[in-house]
Amino acid sequence: MASGLRAVVGVGAVGGLLVVLLWSEQQASNRMPAQARGRGDTGEEDTGFRVVMERFEAPEINHNHSTNNNNNNNNNKLHRRHGNAIVSPRSSAVHAAAPPPPPPPPPQPSVLAAADADADAGHPESRKASQGPPRSSRTIIYVITPTYRRPEQVAELTRLSQTLMLVPDLHWLVVEDAVSPTRRVLSFLDSCSVPHTYLLGTASRRYKGANKPRGVSNRNAGLKWVKVHAKDGVIYFADDDNTYDYRIFDEIRMTRQVSMFPVGLVTRLGVSTPIVSSGKLVGFYDGWIAGRRFPVDMAGFAVNVQFYLKRNAPLMPYSVGFEEDGFLKALRIKPEEIEPLAENCTKILVWHTRTVKTQPAVKMPDTDKVTKTNLHHLKSQIVFPSGLS
Amino acid sequence: MASGLRAVVGVGAVGGLLVVLLWSEQQASNRMPAQARGRGDTGEEDTGFRVVMERFEAPEINHNHSTNNNNNNNNNKLHRRHGNAIVSPRSSAVHAAAPPPPPPPPPQPSVLAAADADADAGHPESRKASQGPPRSSRTIIYVITPTYRRPEQVAELTRLSQTLMLVPDLHWLVVEDAVSPTRRVLSFLDSCSVPHTYLLGTASRRYKGANKPRGVSNRNAGLKWVKVHAKDGVIYFADDDNTYDYRIFDEIRMTRQVSMFPVGLVTRLGVSTPIVSSGKLVGFYDGWIAGRRFPVDMAGFAVNVQFYLKRNAPLMPYSVGFEEDGFLKALRIKPEEIEPLAENCTKILVWHTRTVKTQPAVKMPDTDKVTKTNLHHLKSQIVFPSGLS
Repeated sequence: MASGLRAVVGVGAVGGLLVVLLWSEQQASNRMPAQARGRGDTGEEDTGFRVVMERFEAPEINHNHSTNNNNNNNNNKLHRRHGNAIVSPRSSAVHAAAPPPPPPPPPQPSVLAAADADADAGHPESRKASQGPPRSSRTIIYVITPTYRRPEQVAELTRLSQTLMLVPDLHWLVVEDAVSPTRRVLSFLDSCSVPHTYLLGTASRRYKGANKPRGVSNRNAGLKWVKVHAKDGVIYFADDDNTYDYRIFDEIRMTRQVSMFPVGLVTRLGVSTPIVSSGKLVGFYDGWIAGRRFPVDMAGFAVNVQFYLKRNAPLMPYSVGFEEDGFLKALRIKPEEIEPLAENCTKILVWHTRTVKTQPAVKMPDTDKVTKTNLHHLKSQIVFPSGLS
Repeated sequence: MASGLRAVVGVGAVGGLLVVLLWSEQQASNRMPAQARGRGDTGEEDTGFRVVMERFEAPEINHNHSTNNNNNNNNNKLHRRHGNAIVSPRSSAVHAAAPPPPPPPPPQPSVLAAADADADAGHPESRKASQGPPRSSRTIIYVITPTYRRPEQVAELTRLSQTLMLVPDLHWLVVEDAVSPTRRVLSFLDSCSVPHTYLLGTASRRYKGANKPRGVSNRNAGLKWVKVHAKDGVIYFADDDNTYDYRIFDEIRMTRQVSMFPVGLVTRLGVSTPIVSSGKLVGFYDGWIAGRRFPVDMAGFAVNVQFYLKRNAPLMPYSVGFEEDGFLKALRIKPEEIEPLAENCTKILVWHTRTVKTQPAVKMPDTDKVTKTNLHHLKSQIVFPSGLS
């Protein structure tokens, strides 16, 4: 057996199924497959696959964040556009979190409430609540979406927002890896009918190159926001280029601790999924095991907020390919506690689609032919190499 | 001026704007740019751009289709699943059109009505109507979507369907280039709440290779269906990988003859759009002119059904890169008659996104570990190289 695996323990306890299936004996690698991680063109892929059942032990806990709970707002540069917009379905709040580590805490609700003066005139109700998202009879899903500046950014966000529009009782945390908010994204959010909060999740400059961790600073900014603003609900990480059947969200909403479900188009296997027998998770089917205890895709699990807070609200590690694994380990979840969704993981309702990257556009000339026609207005909606103009 | 252009006529008549802007003098080429046509990796791109104002003369009319109106159903292999499901928002009809040319006509409504015996038990209303789609107080939009078998097919259709779910009074024509319907697509449509019809639009075997026309047989099968089943409404061609802000459809619905609007992420210019001055189309901004009278993207225009029928319902030519141009020329529309949408073409509400192509998956082994768990059920949802299994 490949030394990278910690497998085949506790088989009998989870249904008697032989839970380790070695498709090839190739050594699990620490390098993640390009297709598995959605980063397009780096990394190598295991050519075979392994189905691995882990013995879940109490892991090391990530204490990065849990000690910083009450000394908020010291390091934050706080941008506000619609102060208390968290409450309103048609407005946005802009928060900036400094790059970790150490992670600066997000703004407190009271700060948001104080920023209400210019907020959301069309929704007077929104100013009454100063404690985070709206209360609902149904569980709120906190969808954390990392994003970054690129030509197709607004298109991707538009498409995802239209899926989320079909899901009630959802709060969308759009977290941009940028030094300052991208004007086009704010403009998009201004007309977005999904209840949302805009956050800055600027990546640390210490990580560079093709193999740097991507989306971690964004996701952690979202997690910190949840820690401060939410007491219950469910957390889900939804990249803006993936595809989601809106029906998965009603299942995600039922998550009591940690739920998992299949993700299509991941690695050469075409799917990454827990293996389920008699309603219990008995292993994982994924094209890139690499010694991970939880070889799952970022879009393949959801976490209950109360459970998350009870486990001291860990953040995601800056470890390429091991973000999901590190985060899930820190939650100290046992295999028999994992809740399989999507009809016991028999349906693919989430896909790891990726969009072809386009180059920034050739600049429009500053002639009358551009400035005196509609082209002038379109100019602000196109990404050119040099910035916003 | 590049010889491929037929430009700079009638300038004074459309607002006094100098409507030809030569960014480079490079000869317009008949080879389409990869990015412009969405075909990924073939063709060359003009490095500059030209903004061209055409004098629109009465073009040659495409009579391919108009003479075949009444001798239907001779060449058709007709698959029926829910016979009259065109009327129902939750069912699908499967039609097969033989590959053109010559184009076999689509089935007549009476044939569809005759197939009603097993149709759509949950919607008894559906059997009463034998003439195409439901009547509505609002104009119906006929969205024609070409599709073909590939790993990401159902993901793409899922995502597009969720945009279309936000649009009332719409009928979705999903037209697959396949010899027989793909099981996974039919299964997807069975649970799709968008009113739709499934059609086969099998491409002729005479076209092969990387530079073959793509989507033409599909779109023409959709056009033929519209010709038989619709008397009014609006036609729009919507590829399944593009991104659509749902708000563009309410504008499309207002199309009286032919409307046009900007499409983002097309060619190195970042957008393909009519140039509009004082509410009138005065030229085109597109990275690939190539002597086209209408240098527009497939997703950048819509056609009124009554107008289409009055113009003898032309089909799309099998001419790579000139499908839009040939179709629009055949409609005999004058430039001053083009209706600019999206606030006089100042908003980008449609994007030419493309999805990274994934290879068919490595097969699952036929062992107990697969057959006795959820993996067995997932197997049918993954595209393997050899077919449906």
